[in-house]
Amino acid sequence: VPDAPGASALRDLQNQIHAALGHQPLDLLLRDVRLVDVYREAIVATDLGIAGDRLVSVLPDAARDARQVVDARGRYALPGFIDAHIHIESALLTPDRLAEVVVPTGTTTLLVDPMEVANVAGYDGLAEFLRALPSLPYRIFVEVSSRVPTAPGMETTGGVLGPAEVRRALAWPEAISLGELDPSKVLGVQAPYLRKILSAHARGKIANGHAAGLAGQDLEAYAAARLADDHECVTLDDVRQRLAVGLAVIIREGSSERNLRELVAGIVREKLPTRHMLFCVDDKFCADLRAEGHIDYNVNQAIRLGLDPIQAIQMASLNAAEHFRLDDRLGALVPGRWADLILSETLDPIVPEQVYVGGRLVAEAGKLVVPVPPVKYAAWLRDTVHVRRGQRPAHFALPAKGQRARARVIQIVPDQIINHAVEAVVPVVNGQVQADPSQDVLKIAVAERHGRNGNVAVALCQGFGLQRGAIGGTVAHDHHNIVVLGTNDADLAACVRALVKLRGGFVAVADGQVLAELPLPLAGLMSDQPAAAVNAALDRLNAAARDLGSPLNSPFMTLSFVSLPSIPDLGLTDKGLVDVRARRFLPVLID
Amino acid sequence: VPDAPGASALRDLQNQIHAALGHQPLDLLLRDVRLVDVYREAIVATDLGIAGDRLVSVLPDAARDARQVVDARGRYALPGFIDAHIHIESALLTPDRLAEVVVPTGTTTLLVDPMEVANVAGYDGLAEFLRALPSLPYRIFVEVSSRVPTAPGMETTGGVLGPAEVRRALAWPEAISLGELDPSKVLGVQAPYLRKILSAHARGKIANGHAAGLAGQDLEAYAAARLADDHECVTLDDVRQRLAVGLAVIIREGSSERNLRELVAGIVREKLPTRHMLFCVDDKFCADLRAEGHIDYNVNQAIRLGLDPIQAIQMASLNAAEHFRLDDRLGALVPGRWADLILSETLDPIVPEQVYVGGRLVAEAGKLVVPVPPVKYAAWLRDTVHVRRGQRPAHFALPAKGQRARARVIQIVPDQIINHAVEAVVPVVNGQVQADPSQDVLKIAVAERHGRNGNVAVALCQGFGLQRGAIGGTVAHDHHNIVVLGTNDADLAACVRALVKLRGGFVAVADGQVLAELPLPLAGLMSDQPAAAVNAALDRLNAAARDLGSPLNSPFMTLSFVSLPSIPDLGLTDKGLVDVRARRFLPVLID
Repeated sequence: VPDAPGASALRDLQNQIHAALGHQPLDLLLRDVRLVDVYREAIVATDLGIAGDRLVSVLPDAARDARQVVDARGRYALPGFIDAHIHIESALLTPDRLAEVVVPTGTTTLLVDPMEVANVAGYDGLAEFLRALPSLPYRIFVEVSSRVPTAPGMETTGGVLGPAEVRRALAWPEAISLGELDPSKVLGVQAPYLRKILSAHARGKIANGHAAGLAGQDLEAYAAARLADDHECVTLDDVRQRLAVGLAVIIREGSSERNLRELVAGIVREKLPTRHMLFCVDDKFCADLRAEGHIDYNVNQAIRLGLDPIQAIQMASLNAAEHFRLDDRLGALVPGRWADLILSETLDPIVPEQVYVGGRLVAEAGKLVVPVPPVKYAAWLRDTVHVRRGQRPAHFALPAKGQRARARVIQIVPDQIINHAVEAVVPVVNGQVQADPSQDVLKIAVAERHGRNGNVAVALCQGFGLQRGAIGGTVAHDHHNIVVLGTNDADLAACVRALVKLRGGFVAVADGQVLAELPLPLAGLMSDQPAAAVNAALDRLNAAARDLGSPLNSPFMTLSFVSLPSIPDLGLTDKGLVDVRARRFLPVLID
Repeated sequence: VPDAPGASALRDLQNQIHAALGHQPLDLLLRDVRLVDVYREAIVATDLGIAGDRLVSVLPDAARDARQVVDARGRYALPGFIDAHIHIESALLTPDRLAEVVVPTGTTTLLVDPMEVANVAGYDGLAEFLRALPSLPYRIFVEVSSRVPTAPGMETTGGVLGPAEVRRALAWPEAISLGELDPSKVLGVQAPYLRKILSAHARGKIANGHAAGLAGQDLEAYAAARLADDHECVTLDDVRQRLAVGLAVIIREGSSERNLRELVAGIVREKLPTRHMLFCVDDKFCADLRAEGHIDYNVNQAIRLGLDPIQAIQMASLNAAEHFRLDDRLGALVPGRWADLILSETLDPIVPEQVYVGGRLVAEAGKLVVPVPPVKYAAWLRDTVHVRRGQRPAHFALPAKGQRARARVIQIVPDQIINHAVEAVVPVVNGQVQADPSQDVLKIAVAERHGRNGNVAVALCQGFGLQRGAIGGTVAHDHHNIVVLGTNDADLAACVRALVKLRGGFVAVADGQVLAELPLPLAGLMSDQPAAAVNAALDRLNAAARDLGSPLNSPFMTLSFVSLPSIPDLGLTDKGLVDVRARRFLPVLID
């Protein structure tokens, strides 16, 4: 027999019914709002009554007895925004530090796939990540990461989530789905991943998709595997095809993947039903969240493109709540659901002047107005950078005969995560391949940092433009080993030593000296410092990389994706250079 | 750790992906359909590919390799219909026998609240009821009955489902919600019932409502208790109010409650969004299902009233699947969901020419085309009529002094389940109140039949019109004790003896002889005989009651509701005459 509900949950519910009936005062009466009613698709002039953390009344009755009364002076009241798919680690902030960035924008719920933490710290890391939740001024639910590691056998990760670990995690009350499963596992009919889908459904939870580039029969096979959605639509035809196979469309507008304009313009033009459409950012850096906004940005852009504001708001609230089966708690301003809401003077644009979560004012005029106690994560989650090799220049040796060698080179594409496989002739000195800044062919290396095997894989990379020094970091998708890139082996080793000392982060080094650094001590992925400090450090790092010669806007982000063994043409893991399409390792040197 | 998924579930999924990819032949190709696409809200000319019990392809490709090919010759293909709330016992048939009645109408899924079985046989009865499911040519999911008994302390039932039993049942994979909870428990803030709501949510399942007559603050308090829907709307204003508090509206069209015309006409007129609207019958007798249809009737009536056919079809499919969180399996014809579908030549009206469940043709031209093996229910479920008293005339004594007595009388309202409390002066002979057919005041009695206490409660009733004999049955809402009504104590006792012999059912008796009978041996509520036999027996019973003098259309159904202690003015349980509004017992005789 499952557990009986707790006494405090029952007491809260009883109080809410009593308050709704007028047996006891409301905790908060929000007087004179224009309510965005996402059920009737209408705007209604009324008052909102709140008891505990839930709405209990939406009928006009400004005279109700309440402990606190707020006059909303006719402002629009709309449900708090839900981000339907975010890798929170991309913001480089712990959930507690992220609060000040996203909550003032009207985000009240994040549906998080903590895939990066899981790759570093496994099931225990996921569980530790959840420790932040109770003290946050917003809500997090978990999309349980389905592919940890992403490329089994081709990379060393700190954590592994097999079918049994995923089953355990799916039983958590905070778990609301199986996280995005990529097509290779599904179309490859790989039993361990299919078992995870079945386990999610057995728990009454959905399985999120990631159907990048799929169409026709492949897309049908993907839907036949019972996945529920896709956040990788790029064209309107993608949207049409996904609806036709019953996949919900999560429209993404992140830091680099910017799909909103094309999709929404088409949806408006063709009057497609929006009931199965949601919003997400997927990956959005802290600085972009700061500069531009979060889901409010998606909603306002959609409205500007001609979408009806009520439809746009539904996509950011009710649609997400229903899709993820959270509509008993979330997604609409009706009695019985959490009083998570936004007050805004206008609907075009929506400018969150006040944000309430669970009936508590948490942000006003763009600022958090509640303290967020720093979460004390377990010490081991701050101690995840353990290298055996990489600290010494000799670890980056790439032996070759003669004076010159032909080599494969990873040529990056500025501001994209794909790359091209090219070839170059590189100098060899004393039997060792050298970086050659004159043709922008630098050494790149991945050093295993999970304390497992001391692997160091060395390769060559073009496009970063450094003329001296090196840069590096512990954010390296998805295995998150150390990745370093530079003009000489001594500075590569200096980067590794600096990253070990920081317990993770980003560094820029020249002549053995650290020029700039950002500590990311939580799993080597996230900072627990304020957003402003993190953004400032990142600015200093980018400036240092520019000084070293790089023309890139975001060299550290670009570096963090070269390590991916799943995005063509090439990837570099601790095990070697990966031919992504062929799924095999390649030697760096050609014959 | 929860159980790992079974090997056969995994094999099925793998086969479906392989079939979708064209690695192996389809099991069935339905060529040339006009698909009703409930996601895009469009009609699409295409072909449907099925593997195992699921759809795997909806792209046009008439040339695909398939073990079986059916040419649908341009017929509409629409998702099988879902009845969102039915008490299956009202049809008087076991689920296996009901198949021939509902499946040919296009119903492929019933969401059943087996409240009557639970009142008779408790948790074990519910579990036994589920044994039918695997062999049915349609699907049943369970709304776990929330109020067994309905009126604790005021009636004796065979089963009791406390919070612990409900928690256990909610864990069943077939359980999809907590069954309808009536307002008295919610507005009375009764902890055991609120615990059941919390338990459903903790399991990720919804809690069904039953908000009969609620409005304003009461309705808000009801929604604040986190119930999800209401199937008791009678007016368009009811619909508006329920949407405003986030309750889905389940439009009911049953045997006696006929709400569809008024609601749908208003919904069409006011263009209310139908996304949160569903269909049900609640209670519909076998004969009416036969004569008129099931959910197909609701859908066709709605279309006739001007609702867009695609919207009407959504209400009978996708909307129900999403509301009950079954949309990973049900509700749309897309890859990955069960191939439960209807083929129809037209959409106005929809005439199910073929019905498929799980990719298997189960009905054609109004007839089942698959055998339904009779379910062997446990012997104890066929042996639930155990009386200690009621077999002898003396058990119906109602002592009084003098020659005449003033008494309270239950005055029934023809074809309704409400009744009026009236008074009458009745004859007393040898110290015993007598029935008085001349003023149509008859004796009515409820005899406890669950083997618990031998209670017999005797009262008086007006409106049945019998001039001689008696009628009786073991269907007596919601406690389902024996209820008998007649002109003399000897025939009341003869009814009870006949019902005991039948192990439940309905009987009509005169002069100690059984005139007509219908055995309902399963829990004393359902027959396991063919629908035609049950309808014929019911016709004979109604004819017998007419011969005895009754002017009523459905005297046995009317009788089965007089026993309800929850519908005003009066109810009669084994414990006595109930003043429903005051929730107390009343003496039959006045001073």
